[in-house]
This record gives sequence, structure tokens and C-alpha cells, in this order.
Amino acid sequence: MRGAVLHGPRDIRFEDRDLPKVTQPTDAVIRLAATCVCGSDLWPYRGISGITAPTPMGHEYCGVVEEVGRAVERVKPGQFVIGSFAASDNTCPSCAIGYQSSCQHREWVTGAQAPVLRVPLADGTLVATADRPSKAQIPSLLAVSDVMGTGWFAADAAQVRRGSTVVVVGDGAVGLLAVLSAKVMGAERIVAMSRHETRQKLAQEFGATDVVTERGDAGVGRILQLTRGVGADSVLECVGTQESMMQAVRCARRGGYVSYVGVPHSVVIEGQELFFAHVHLHGGPAPVRRFLPKLIDLALSGTINPGKVFDLTLPLEKVAEGYRAMDERRAIKALLEL
Amino acid sequence: MRGAVLHGPRDIRFEDRDLPKVTQPTDAVIRLAATCVCGSDLWPYRGISGITAPTPMGHEYCGVVEEVGRAVERVKPGQFVIGSFAASDNTCPSCAIGYQSSCQHREWVTGAQAPVLRVPLADGTLVATADRPSKAQIPSLLAVSDVMGTGWFAADAAQVRRGSTVVVVGDGAVGLLAVLSAKVMGAERIVAMSRHETRQKLAQEFGATDVVTERGDAGVGRILQLTRGVGADSVLECVGTQESMMQAVRCARRGGYVSYVGVPHSVVIEGQELFFAHVHLHGGPAPVRRFLPKLIDLALSGTINPGKVFDLTLPLEKVAEGYRAMDERRAIKALLEL
Repeated sequence: MRGAVLHGPRDIRFEDRDLPKVTQPTDAVIRLAATCVCGSDLWPYRGISGITAPTPMGHEYCGVVEEVGRAVERVKPGQFVIGSFAASDNTCPSCAIGYQSSCQHREWVTGAQAPVLRVPLADGTLVATADRPSKAQIPSLLAVSDVMGTGWFAADAAQVRRGSTVVVVGDGAVGLLAVLSAKVMGAERIVAMSRHETRQKLAQEFGATDVVTERGDAGVGRILQLTRGVGADSVLECVGTQESMMQAVRCARRGGYVSYVGVPHSVVIEGQELFFAHVHLHGGPAPVRRFLPKLIDLALSGTINPGKVFDLTLPLEKVAEGYRAMDERRAIKALLEL
Repeated sequence: MRGAVLHGPRDIRFEDRDLPKVTQPTDAVIRLAATCVCGSDLWPYRGISGITAPTPMGHEYCGVVEEVGRAVERVKPGQFVIGSFAASDNTCPSCAIGYQSSCQHREWVTGAQAPVLRVPLADGTLVATADRPSKAQIPSLLAVSDVMGTGWFAADAAQVRRGSTVVVVGDGAVGLLAVLSAKVMGAERIVAMSRHETRQKLAQEFGATDVVTERGDAGVGRILQLTRGVGADSVLECVGTQESMMQAVRCARRGGYVSYVGVPHSVVIEGQELFFAHVHLHGGPAPVRRFLPKLIDLALSGTINPGKVFDLTLPLEKVAEGYRAMDERRAIKALLEL
């Protein structure tokens, strides 16, 4: 088969790869219904996080099970399944309290920008739908696999509640779906920080009540102005830079909640500022598996339509153009058809 | 009157000061029943946080109201009152959600190592007891004013629950009272990290089930060993150094809670380590006012006896010896009699 392999900065190739097989008794092999490019793929694509060897890319997936290992009991060939980028046994102490992305046996799924994918720890990782979804439902189910689950974790980790005032820092696909998550959780006011018109529109469609275009200190100033000097109850940091992290901390009210869901790159938090900010801080790799059953239901019932973040659809063989469009911010997120 | 004034590193003088008076309509002036030296007083005493002018010291207090300003409605002369180091109006948006130590009108109380003290925002800051307490109850009520309230916040902010496994980093008075707080909240296992025999004993008296003497990586290793590789549900950081903060983060389980209640000195938290640690982080200046009514009840009923942290009692005029004894770790905490 052919799939996407990163060879170096901005060097994505669509090339021959071995067909994935069951290699562990707990594996499943699935044929993907669709796949996509993640904002986090741009870190190695841009050379900001280095790679040491050609690396098969992609970790967002849904599709039909083709084969399972002999120890797999719950997942059956022919089922339509959705999984997370973090394979997990779903039974260890971390999984038991809902932190499957820190499973003691965690394996990172990779190589999903391809027609066929091996998923480790299939019983713990994959969630099957009752029926085969329609073609129209595929984009939203694919989004649930990572970007929607991550946006949902951002809202959950920042304790968004009915009536909350919420600020979302970052207008990538995760940030936009964090807006949607906050809306579903009943937030009263949702401020999207974005300076990009098409993203602002989608944020508003997802439930943003306000848009702030300023960044850094000016952005913080606007949030304080909008909240009568108090700050927001919940701030969802969906970028992962030093500026975005401190912007998030400074937008929060005393006693408020700040979540962060993008891998931080060169971020350091100064202890004394954090101390006097008096915020709650929580984040990390989103435990998407915790939220999959609920989010699949919401997507299949049409309550949420996170697939709207895909504003570019390409055949898989054009994967390099998907990366380019996202890198240049011409596209929010690229869906790759198989 | 005479009170303690810091003139420079390790230069505490007991000297004449003006008698405090009501200067704002919201003030109260109280005659102290006793006062004491705080672990946080040692930072300027040691010259680690600098002072620019001679500074009246002390911020822990309880005593009898002598005079109130014309705007004070709830606090009456003759009442016995306890307050926090952070004066607060108890009505602003920060106070309303229990973060009185970040009150929009916060003033730091200082000059309490003296017979008489001016307390700003008296109505919001002070809590009166129903009756005049006995002499034997004074040390515990004094402890409630700061060090017990801070230990309680450490346990509260780290979500200690019935059955929790708790680690306390730091064996100062706050750390020891964090142990007591965790015990009252129903923790099943409480590990005190201490290498000092008299402090270990008091920790055990307060409810510690285990003592770990190792620090840094070795200390983390012991905690992981004690928790079957999982880490603690709640870790209470009661020191404020880089080593203690990272020790706390590394002792926590994935999805666990880390609190920090001592002003951090030169602490920086690396974003990527925090991200993958997957912990909840919360702390700041303890909102003691939130806890005062409950802690006063617990102390007056004898359910808790936080006054046990005072292992040195001196007349106020010997305040400099109190600082020396705590600086040299000969005493956990010095009570100053009036």
C-alpha cells in the first residue's frame, strides 16, 4: 500500500509501505474510512520537533476491522470502529480513572495517513458503532477520534459548566472544537481569540458569543474589559506556545481554571506568577478514549457536527498538499479520502 | 508600644513603634492574645526576598477588638476575633467564590509581632468567636489564622478525599498541618516526607501513616515504590523551592492533584514535563478566610489541636531568638507571648 511518510522538514512523501499486519495478539488491523492531517503533525513537518528516521504519519482514524489478534475479545472483524491516537488497555490504574492517554501500557498510534492501520491494544482502544455509519457521518466520526476529543478535554479539564464564561486561546481545529464543546456543556459566554475571518465564522457557528482579535497583553486587556476586570471562569489553551500559555493564565479569573491540550513547545511557567494568578491548571495528552462513547453518540445523533472543521478534502495521494495548505493556514484541517 | 522590625538579613529588632490606630473607616484595631513567627518570615529574614526599608513583621493574629472605624458594622469592640494575613472585603467576585486572598481590595496584614494590630477591611476579614476562648485554646486559634488555614488549603486544593493516598512535601509547620488536614478529610494513607526526627513524630501524631526521609529523585522513587508504581492521588507541596515543586509533580499519579501553598522562590515549571505528568495543579496564597469558620469550630471543639506546632514559647521581647531558632531548624514554630 501507499501512505504518507515524513522524511525531513516539509518533505512529506506518498510512498510504498508494508501492509500493516497483526503482530501482537492484542492488535487489530483496520481499513480506514477516511483519514486526515492533525495540527500536531505540523510540529515535525516544520522541523520544530525533529525526526531521526523516515516516519509514517497520521494518528486520526476510523474504519472497518479486517483482522484481530488471538487475544482480542471485544472487537470483531467487520465492525466499524473509532479509536484514539493513544492506544490503551483501558484497565490499568491510569485508565481506571479516565486517563487512558497515560495508560501504563500506552502506545502511540502512527501511520494512519494510509489505507490500512495496525491498532495496538484493540480491546481497550477501539469503540465500535452499532451500525455502519453513512458516508456523511464519516468526517464527524473521524474528528471524534482526536481533534473533537481533544477540544472536549480542554473544556472538561477547565471545568466548563452551565453559565460559565469561557475563553478559547487558539483558532485551529482543536480550538474551534473546544468552542463547540463549551457550548454543548452549557457555557453562557464563549470568547474565541482569533484573527482569521473564516475561523471566526466557524467559531461563531459552533457557539462563540464574542471574538477577540488581539493577542498577548492586548488580548488579555480585552478579556478583562469584557469581564469587568474579573477574568474568565475557564480558559482553554489550544496552541502550545509560551505566548498562548501565559495569555491563557492571564485571562483567567482568580480561582478560575486553565486547561492546555497542545504539546507545549519551549514553554516554561514562572512559579511566582502562577502562584499569584491563583488558577487551577490541568492538561496533557487528551484522554480521548474516556469521551469516545459519548462523543460518538453526539456525532451520530447529529447533536454535534465536528466534521465541519474539514474545509479541505483531498484524495490521500495528495496528502502533501494537505500539509502545505495547513502549514500556510489556507486550510483549517484537511480530510484525506480513500 | 514595642514590636518586631526587620532591618536587614538576620537583623530583627524589638523596638518602639507607633501604636496602631484606626486610619480607615473599615479598620479595626485589636489587642493580640498571642502572636508568632511564620516560615514565610524566614525568606526576608534570610535576605532571599529583599526589603527596602525597616519592616514591621508578623501577620498571624487573634485577640480582642479595641476599636473599629465608623464603617465597620459586624465587628464590635470586646469581641475575640481571628483573621487572615490577607485582609479582604469578602464581597468582591474573588471573595464570592472563596478566593479571599485574591480579593480585589486585598491588603496584606503586617506588624502583628506586636501587642496591638490594625486590621483593614475588618468586616470582611475578621471572624468572631461566640465566647472568649480559654488561654489553652489560644495557640490553636492563632495557628488557624495562617498556618493551619494554609495546610488546610493545601489539602483542599489537592482534592484530598476519603480514602485518598496523600504525600506531603515539606515538614515545616504548614506541612505538618497539611498532614493533619488530610487526616481530618479522611485520607487513608498519608506519607510525610521528612528527615527530621521531632517533625516526623509530630507528623505521625497528626496522622501520617508513613515517613519517607529521601528527597529529590530518591524520594520520588520511594513514593512510587509505596504506591506500586502509580504515584499518589494528592501531593501537597509545602516548601516553595524548585526541588520541592518538581518532587511533588513527580510523586503524583497521572490524573492526580498537586497543590502548592508556599510562595515559590525561583521556581520554573517546564511545560512539556507538566503536560506528560498529566496532573492537576492548583495553589497560591491560601484563602484562609474561606476556612476560618470551620477551622475555628474544629479547634474550639478540640477536634484538631494545631497549636501543637508551637514547640517554642518565648515572650514577645525575645522575638529575635524565635527567628534564630526557626532559621536553624531548632524549632518548628515559635509562639510569642504578650
